[in-house]
Amino acid sequence: MALISIIEDFHPMNNAKLLDIAEQLTPTLHHEIHEPVGGFTLKERYSSEAEEIVLHKVHHIAMGKGENLCLDFGNHMVGYLTLDFSYTGSHPDAPAYLKLKFAETYEEVCENSDVYNGWVSRSWIQEEYVHVDVLPARIRIPRRHAFRYLKITTMDTSVKYKLVVRHAECLTETSADYRRLAAADIADPFLKRMDEISIRTLANCMQEVFEDGPKRDRRLWMGDLRLEALANYCTFRNYNLVRRCLYLFGGTRFPDGRVSANVFIKPKAEADDTWLYDYSLMFVVALEEYMQQTDDVDTLNDLYDIAMQQIEMSLRLIDREGRMSEEDAANVFLDWSEGMDKRSGGVAVLIYAMRYARRLARRKNDWSQAQWLMEKLDWLKACARKNYYDEERKCFVSGGQASLITQVWNVLADVLYPEEAKDLMERSEEFMDCFPMKTPYMHHYYIAALLRAGLREKALLHMRDYWGSMMEAGADTFWEAWDPANPKGSPYGEGGVVINSYCHAWSCTPTYFIRSWFMREKHTDDHL
Amino acid sequence: MALISIIEDFHPMNNAKLLDIAEQLTPTLHHEIHEPVGGFTLKERYSSEAEEIVLHKVHHIAMGKGENLCLDFGNHMVGYLTLDFSYTGSHPDAPAYLKLKFAETYEEVCENSDVYNGWVSRSWIQEEYVHVDVLPARIRIPRRHAFRYLKITTMDTSVKYKLVVRHAECLTETSADYRRLAAADIADPFLKRMDEISIRTLANCMQEVFEDGPKRDRRLWMGDLRLEALANYCTFRNYNLVRRCLYLFGGTRFPDGRVSANVFIKPKAEADDTWLYDYSLMFVVALEEYMQQTDDVDTLNDLYDIAMQQIEMSLRLIDREGRMSEEDAANVFLDWSEGMDKRSGGVAVLIYAMRYARRLARRKNDWSQAQWLMEKLDWLKACARKNYYDEERKCFVSGGQASLITQVWNVLADVLYPEEAKDLMERSEEFMDCFPMKTPYMHHYYIAALLRAGLREKALLHMRDYWGSMMEAGADTFWEAWDPANPKGSPYGEGGVVINSYCHAWSCTPTYFIRSWFMREKHTDDHL
Repeated sequence: MALISIIEDFHPMNNAKLLDIAEQLTPTLHHEIHEPVGGFTLKERYSSEAEEIVLHKVHHIAMGKGENLCLDFGNHMVGYLTLDFSYTGSHPDAPAYLKLKFAETYEEVCENSDVYNGWVSRSWIQEEYVHVDVLPARIRIPRRHAFRYLKITTMDTSVKYKLVVRHAECLTETSADYRRLAAADIADPFLKRMDEISIRTLANCMQEVFEDGPKRDRRLWMGDLRLEALANYCTFRNYNLVRRCLYLFGGTRFPDGRVSANVFIKPKAEADDTWLYDYSLMFVVALEEYMQQTDDVDTLNDLYDIAMQQIEMSLRLIDREGRMSEEDAANVFLDWSEGMDKRSGGVAVLIYAMRYARRLARRKNDWSQAQWLMEKLDWLKACARKNYYDEERKCFVSGGQASLITQVWNVLADVLYPEEAKDLMERSEEFMDCFPMKTPYMHHYYIAALLRAGLREKALLHMRDYWGSMMEAGADTFWEAWDPANPKGSPYGEGGVVINSYCHAWSCTPTYFIRSWFMREKHTDDHL
Repeated sequence: MALISIIEDFHPMNNAKLLDIAEQLTPTLHHEIHEPVGGFTLKERYSSEAEEIVLHKVHHIAMGKGENLCLDFGNHMVGYLTLDFSYTGSHPDAPAYLKLKFAETYEEVCENSDVYNGWVSRSWIQEEYVHVDVLPARIRIPRRHAFRYLKITTMDTSVKYKLVVRHAECLTETSADYRRLAAADIADPFLKRMDEISIRTLANCMQEVFEDGPKRDRRLWMGDLRLEALANYCTFRNYNLVRRCLYLFGGTRFPDGRVSANVFIKPKAEADDTWLYDYSLMFVVALEEYMQQTDDVDTLNDLYDIAMQQIEMSLRLIDREGRMSEEDAANVFLDWSEGMDKRSGGVAVLIYAMRYARRLARRKNDWSQAQWLMEKLDWLKACARKNYYDEERKCFVSGGQASLITQVWNVLADVLYPEEAKDLMERSEEFMDCFPMKTPYMHHYYIAALLRAGLREKALLHMRDYWGSMMEAGADTFWEAWDPANPKGSPYGEGGVVINSYCHAWSCTPTYFIRSWFMREKHTDDHL
């Protein structure tokens, strides 16, 4: 996720003990070497028309000034590129000057990044210019890149020689250990493929932390972490990596104790000066889910107070009638929906998080806190119904808007009786045009709400439909943002195709739904 | 020098013994650290209008997207840049993306290199794009650059932070040892400064070999070597570096034994498939001059036959009347003069080289060879006079052209009686419009001819005038090509200012003339 918040003179509150533990939990990274499986040449520099090159010829093509060679590594890679160059003709009398473009998708490889004029830094565009002074040469690109395609353009050689790419390889990097990957016997081939793509999405985001996207922002965001952890529990089961990330969020926070929306890892752990109301509440949810998996009492003891603090600080934003102000709702994310009223959704997320907080309190034998939370929870649910539920239209309305997103969160918050929730979600299409969902992050919660309302078939259908449309559009890993009706769209403005992330953590949850819900008659957890 | 020659399936003849000795003579490199002495900002990206920044503020400027900071290192540097970056504002949430432009001159720093469209590879343009992923950071640029100015443009940061260049330094590199620099008591401050600039030019070209230019081509060319060696003998006196270069030329040659115009050093020594008639003859001249300095009999024994072979092979291109064909004259360089007839000049260079060859033969006690050379020399001189000297106009005419360049080489070859030569050189201005001299390389030989004709004052005047005009135009080191009447010119075509080399070996000889000729009443050597 890219989101801009700036606080002057922001100094996060750091807890050395928690950060030390996080540091000790730094994962081992696993590596593999992959070579291209094919190649092609773009007919014009930025055309999408290409001429295919059979694999055994790829490493024999002699490239002169302005020519390009595109390598296809066959799947989404995260890692370090090494290229071996040689030449044909006379001894090189000038350096080779190359432009390397790393692209996660075919679309991206064909795009002219010069036209990008969006609000996210163009420094994320995966392009490098390289001078090769001596040939033959082995060039290892020191930066990590996320890509399937590599476009090599010779900006110049000299008339005396042409360049040959003799060998290319990517040393992949991930903290996901495929040897630990839980087996799953998925009969439906389409779902099997969707599961594989989800897992690859997750694995390629699993680095020293759960990154949001290995191309961009390469950073630990709370909302993404919660979904990655869910997918991780039924696949790679790297519990220590979840624990490490929770300690990082606990270890560096806003000066008043709030959990930041994201944490920088380098040069040292530091909370970003960005706070999102719902993201900080996801800390509570993620901690409780981690406890369900591990029963790790040390972690509970270390992070319990921080989790409770998030609930208490959010409750302070709720007035006596159980309402949230418009100003405070500006810090609610939910989805990339400009102009959407997020007051009811914000209250619902808090109710949802309090359910998890109450479980944590019970697990901690903190009975008075559990009692207090139950009371608050019941009160806030009642307020939510009273304030935002239109008993005639039988839907939630916030600021005059009956958006699907508001319905989803109120269903997840159990504000309605089960039959009402089921009825509401059966009619979910009615609300889809009011601020359509923009991201797989929100689509995840939509599916969760359908499941919570007992609409298993509808949930499966939507998952097949939405993530399936990405597969049909050629996804090797699932994308940050995707609207099948507007495939060239970007949340980041003009020319944003080159800045979009095409392997994004918050899109990896089909594997969770498939493995925890759709492969079994009854669901096996309560992570909705 | 940049010059294009291509021979299909060229396989140089290598001599392992000679190349081993060259390898053993690899020089120690000396290093110094230099920091900027000032800074400025270009008002527009490619304007020459700049706003000066006082030195103590340079490292506090916060740079946002599209802004530039130029550092002035105060003199011409050859070496490795290190930059320390920090930031102001929030924690960086995106990499910093920078363009670094290294420029030898102020003109070059202001130029837009995109407009370059010349025939020399644009890979020589000293620009690098750098992503800085983590801040603060120390970035060491792994390539060696030649520069006085460094322009840092922030292509992008992000709205959350601005970039600060906290520190910059250049680790210079040269095989010239300033502790060995011969003292010279030069009274005239202008000549003293010219001497210093010459020496810096030489030192910055002295690397693992005598390079032609540390920016471009960074390569060992024979014509440049001869002049560098001359300047070196009266300054740094690094005899081993000259020896090494002679062994390199001897160690890897054309299959028929010809000395190549230049030799590549990396990845291993290899003759270029470029042969220049006069450059191969300069091997003989440079070897004899090296022997004058060192009396190094081993080197004479190792390279004597190769030197003689160059003379013999060139003589084969001369017909019975002592003429050279137009086709063969195409391999004569002399100067960058398109369309000039080089037949007479070519013959004259051979006569000149035979004078040195004869001295080598005597030194080797090879009396029959010395005798043979004397006979050939006398014959060829007589032919040159007969074929090319117009007794009425009292000048040399080649293909109908009476160019200055042709006069110069015939004077250096002693084709005329001393009084005739003196008279001819006194009238040298008459010939200047016929293919004007383009390079300091040719201006060197013009001065040498004036001195050989006994016109010491005129020689001094021209040196002061020509190299002095570079000094007035701001030279920190002397330039590859310079025509005071056309200061923006380039031998390399459109936009060539960014590709010109502004520290070029063949321009370094004023120190030789000053120290060996103009500081003394009588000259002390015979290197004309």
